[in-house]
Amino acid sequence: MSVIYQRVALIGLGLIAGSMARAMQRGGLAGEITGYARSAETRTTAADIGLVDRVCDSAAEAVKDADLVVLAVPVGVMGAVAAEISAHLKPGATVTDVGSVKRAVIETVSPHIPDGVHFVPAHPLAGTEHSGPEAGFAELYDNRWCLIVPVEGTEPQAVARLRSLWEAMGANVDEMDADHHDLVLAVTSHTPHLIAYTMVGVADDLRRVTDSEVIKYSAAGFRDFTRIAASDPTMWRDVFLTNKDATLEILGRFTEELFALQRAIRTGDGDHLFDYFTHTRAIRRGIIDAGQDTDAPDFGRGGPKS
Amino acid sequence: MSVIYQRVALIGLGLIAGSMARAMQRGGLAGEITGYARSAETRTTAADIGLVDRVCDSAAEAVKDADLVVLAVPVGVMGAVAAEISAHLKPGATVTDVGSVKRAVIETVSPHIPDGVHFVPAHPLAGTEHSGPEAGFAELYDNRWCLIVPVEGTEPQAVARLRSLWEAMGANVDEMDADHHDLVLAVTSHTPHLIAYTMVGVADDLRRVTDSEVIKYSAAGFRDFTRIAASDPTMWRDVFLTNKDATLEILGRFTEELFALQRAIRTGDGDHLFDYFTHTRAIRRGIIDAGQDTDAPDFGRGGPKS
Repeated sequence: MSVIYQRVALIGLGLIAGSMARAMQRGGLAGEITGYARSAETRTTAADIGLVDRVCDSAAEAVKDADLVVLAVPVGVMGAVAAEISAHLKPGATVTDVGSVKRAVIETVSPHIPDGVHFVPAHPLAGTEHSGPEAGFAELYDNRWCLIVPVEGTEPQAVARLRSLWEAMGANVDEMDADHHDLVLAVTSHTPHLIAYTMVGVADDLRRVTDSEVIKYSAAGFRDFTRIAASDPTMWRDVFLTNKDATLEILGRFTEELFALQRAIRTGDGDHLFDYFTHTRAIRRGIIDAGQDTDAPDFGRGGPKS
Repeated sequence: MSVIYQRVALIGLGLIAGSMARAMQRGGLAGEITGYARSAETRTTAADIGLVDRVCDSAAEAVKDADLVVLAVPVGVMGAVAAEISAHLKPGATVTDVGSVKRAVIETVSPHIPDGVHFVPAHPLAGTEHSGPEAGFAELYDNRWCLIVPVEGTEPQAVARLRSLWEAMGANVDEMDADHHDLVLAVTSHTPHLIAYTMVGVADDLRRVTDSEVIKYSAAGFRDFTRIAASDPTMWRDVFLTNKDATLEILGRFTEELFALQRAIRTGDGDHLFDYFTHTRAIRRGIIDAGQDTDAPDFGRGGPKS
């Protein structure tokens, strides 16, 4: 593979930016990678582990002469960061982001993009429950989706170039509009996260079931919830505050369905439960067929066929 | 290791019984294993793959002369199976089960246990979303918990012998009473399953988000829900019908908490969300420290450190 952007600036040096740095290094996709993080501790760690070629002391310094600037900070501070770098962007540069919400990011970042600079929002659908510069790894995006959400009037060439970067980092790329993105993500990610956080909170709160029991006996279901509910609190707070409408809509649907199942339990309506559970089982098969998960008998956690 | 029970009869030949057969074979823990399943197709498959030493045509035949009889059928039919085998049990034999609910199983099975036969309920906390005789594998119980729920008046020797079998199959064993078991499981397993089923049902139901999108973009949270929601429908219907009170209690707590978070989203109370998410993150650390999950950066799904 060859260099796609001569100079790339990563603003924010957490799991997502760190994995991008590793994936770009793996493929030789950037001539030079600069990086900046607000926390001095993060900058020191990133420098110590050689995450990028040059760690800068300010976002303005990092974006100087950059051909691609990646905003990899919580959605709630995207606007402030954009304002900070605005005057320092190179004409012809592309600014992108990796935020989990797109409408709010576009509204807050766009006003700070100067004429002659391209803004191409994006969202890689990949992550782990870990955060920080040391959490990144080159394979995070392999065979995962990255959604690009072009804003009106963007030069197709700028979109195509960003797409080629994500593909070279291992991802499959789709394009969609911002509102549809936010609804799809409310279903596939934001609401599931809120529900997982809630369930873990309930478990922790129950006095009759001690913490140690909840943890010891977590294997059968709850364990998956704790994994989801261990994600970065700042990132998720911002997701719910900025994708409020879609999340509340899906939550409303969720509680409606949950109450129907709850009533079936209360009234002993076994047929309703059986039919519902049979129906949901089919979706799982679709996900395995689509190559987005393993079919290993122990969920890929160390069993014989994983 | 050496033989713990000379003859073991498995009634039901699904994932749990199949994995027990494989684990007993691995350790040489049973002199002979017989098996019976209601479905002729299951019996044929079990015979074809050599799951047990002898597949029988009736439960009564399978339990003849057995030292240990394992009821590995859905909780809703435990009583009927117990009635069927009652007259054929060998004096001094132990009957156990593997049901996910204990109070209901004890109430329905106990009346059919003849004098001189020991009944020692148990529940291994392990499973996958797969079912059927071919889903079993010897390692399923390694380092997982098995909860033994002795009923009043059971001979300690019978309990100790069953414990030694589960330990020899790789499990850690704890004892607790039936009501506490059912509450702990409502928190760590039953309610999480119901919630996962619900979320998957909601996703499938939304017309604006097509099935294919839900499946394609499932990586970020939803995927874990579909795994949980792919479990055996019959088994789970019976769990909810027979652990009704505890499940409804935990569901009530869950919706209370969910509504509080929903209100925080609606009113934009970021501090509430941040504090909640920070708190739940700590539980995850406890589960990893307790050795009940991997800390691999991609959840053990094929990344570099898994």
